[in-house]
Amino acid sequence: MTEFGLISKIRTAFPDLPEGCEGIGDDCAILPQRDGMQTLVSTDMLVEGTHFLLRDIAARDLGWKSAAVNISDIAAMGGYPKASFLSLALPPSVSESWAEEFIAGYRDISLRYGCPLMGGDTTRSPERLCINVAVLGEAPQGSARKRSDARSGDLVCVSGPLGDSAAGLDVILSGCSRGELEQQLVNRHYRPTPRVETGLMLASWSEVHAMMDISDGIGSDLRHILDASKLSARIDCARLPLSDHLLAYCSRRGLDPLKFALSGGEDYELLFTASPSARARIEQEGLHVIGELLPSDSCGQILWEGGSMPDYKGYTHF
Amino acid sequence: MTEFGLISKIRTAFPDLPEGCEGIGDDCAILPQRDGMQTLVSTDMLVEGTHFLLRDIAARDLGWKSAAVNISDIAAMGGYPKASFLSLALPPSVSESWAEEFIAGYRDISLRYGCPLMGGDTTRSPERLCINVAVLGEAPQGSARKRSDARSGDLVCVSGPLGDSAAGLDVILSGCSRGELEQQLVNRHYRPTPRVETGLMLASWSEVHAMMDISDGIGSDLRHILDASKLSARIDCARLPLSDHLLAYCSRRGLDPLKFALSGGEDYELLFTASPSARARIEQEGLHVIGELLPSDSCGQILWEGGSMPDYKGYTHF
Repeated sequence: MTEFGLISKIRTAFPDLPEGCEGIGDDCAILPQRDGMQTLVSTDMLVEGTHFLLRDIAARDLGWKSAAVNISDIAAMGGYPKASFLSLALPPSVSESWAEEFIAGYRDISLRYGCPLMGGDTTRSPERLCINVAVLGEAPQGSARKRSDARSGDLVCVSGPLGDSAAGLDVILSGCSRGELEQQLVNRHYRPTPRVETGLMLASWSEVHAMMDISDGIGSDLRHILDASKLSARIDCARLPLSDHLLAYCSRRGLDPLKFALSGGEDYELLFTASPSARARIEQEGLHVIGELLPSDSCGQILWEGGSMPDYKGYTHF
Repeated sequence: MTEFGLISKIRTAFPDLPEGCEGIGDDCAILPQRDGMQTLVSTDMLVEGTHFLLRDIAARDLGWKSAAVNISDIAAMGGYPKASFLSLALPPSVSESWAEEFIAGYRDISLRYGCPLMGGDTTRSPERLCINVAVLGEAPQGSARKRSDARSGDLVCVSGPLGDSAAGLDVILSGCSRGELEQQLVNRHYRPTPRVETGLMLASWSEVHAMMDISDGIGSDLRHILDASKLSARIDCARLPLSDHLLAYCSRRGLDPLKFALSGGEDYELLFTASPSARARIEQEGLHVIGELLPSDSCGQILWEGGSMPDYKGYTHF
């Protein structure tokens, strides 16, 4: 069974949600409040050996990243984070000082985003470290942007450069020596910056329709929007924003930067769609138009102009 | 480092919460809403090999129990559950049909309490099954009962029989043959019934002060109330409610029922304190007065009259 197969079974088991609620199928669940606001909830589990290796990531970075991935989900709906809840199953191999460093990194990002840790659970694990974070956020009623909100003719846009995190992972896995350039890419992998402020801005624009964060890679994530909105897309690969760090690293090592940008995950930039009338506004804000949405007759297809994704599979944890 | 040592470090790292918020230190966190209600949040992680063994528990029971322990935390504050979020890290040893049965059990309890699963995460685990559940609940502003709300002179009360779950665990671990009696006790261990309706009723009584659920055992849990409220207690062991099943099982096997009632965890009954003026009302509802709270000069002490707890340690997962 694949990850998405199990999620689909769970979704089928819970068909009827209370009015105004949105459950499985987006970055966050949505629960209406009585006061004109919506509660947003995101949760993610990170398992040693599946998502990270303890020998590769510093405790402080892992603390940051554990909260970051969920804060990014709140950003992806156009909300702001309010509180987080941390569950930790610690194996005997994890020392007290490791745990303290982890909490310090978790605190770093919590302070950065004004999102205090308000509860959780700590327990023992026989072998592997397991981390679960749940983040509660909020957005004004009706302002949370869903994957299913995209419209035919919309521009496809991203908030920042793609591929840096995947190149950072390449640095880590290749074990190559790390100059300042390599370290910058590694930092993008270990210390992603959720785009909360950008998400809030975009959610205040009526021209912005669908939104999500790029966690699995642009190809896989864009497909979620297309599936939910029953549309196709054309992407101009020459317009994918690539950082100078990525270009320099790839040039130095004879690698294809487009491969990182197209198939690499964990950038945590925002992927959104907007009316063509918003193009000037989007570009003024330093955001990037990379393509457009097409009608549904070729449902779910992505035309990658100027690039190809032959061996692209995206991240799947099953 | 103990579980409580780590929690204390985390608490120190997040000293300042927004106004009206309550964080670590109770069954649930409390976040105020703008509409006169409070959001309650509870989260728990269950790890294979620490909290359960796959060969001992049916998938459907584990699905039920995973949600039950968090719904019970909402009940313990006097709230009602609104939605749950399930993270699952599945090892290769877990089959598709096992996962479906787990979801069926999770659905059973979700329907029973009107608490739909609205999101989560699924991923792979190298060896061990790991489950995290977060439940969101709600209570009217100011009605959530905290551990620190107890007052000197309060009656100490429980909502139902103690020790059944621990006796059920004894049946499982001893591998003894299971008649109807033994199976009833095992069911109390695997399918605990959160006391949501009772918690809501008690939260509507002004005489009820502190409340929590009994997850680690009455000795350990009562101590949390005493620590938070800076009081002591006298417990009359002859008044601890014991079920006929527990008495029959212990009689048959030559065991001490009081040992299960005093030191066994996971009953998920409510432990609460109330003004002496509420005694008649409490007993009319079939709830049980088991002792009283004493002033703080012997802070944190529990006097167990008619019983002793020589080797009592409570559950600690570190």
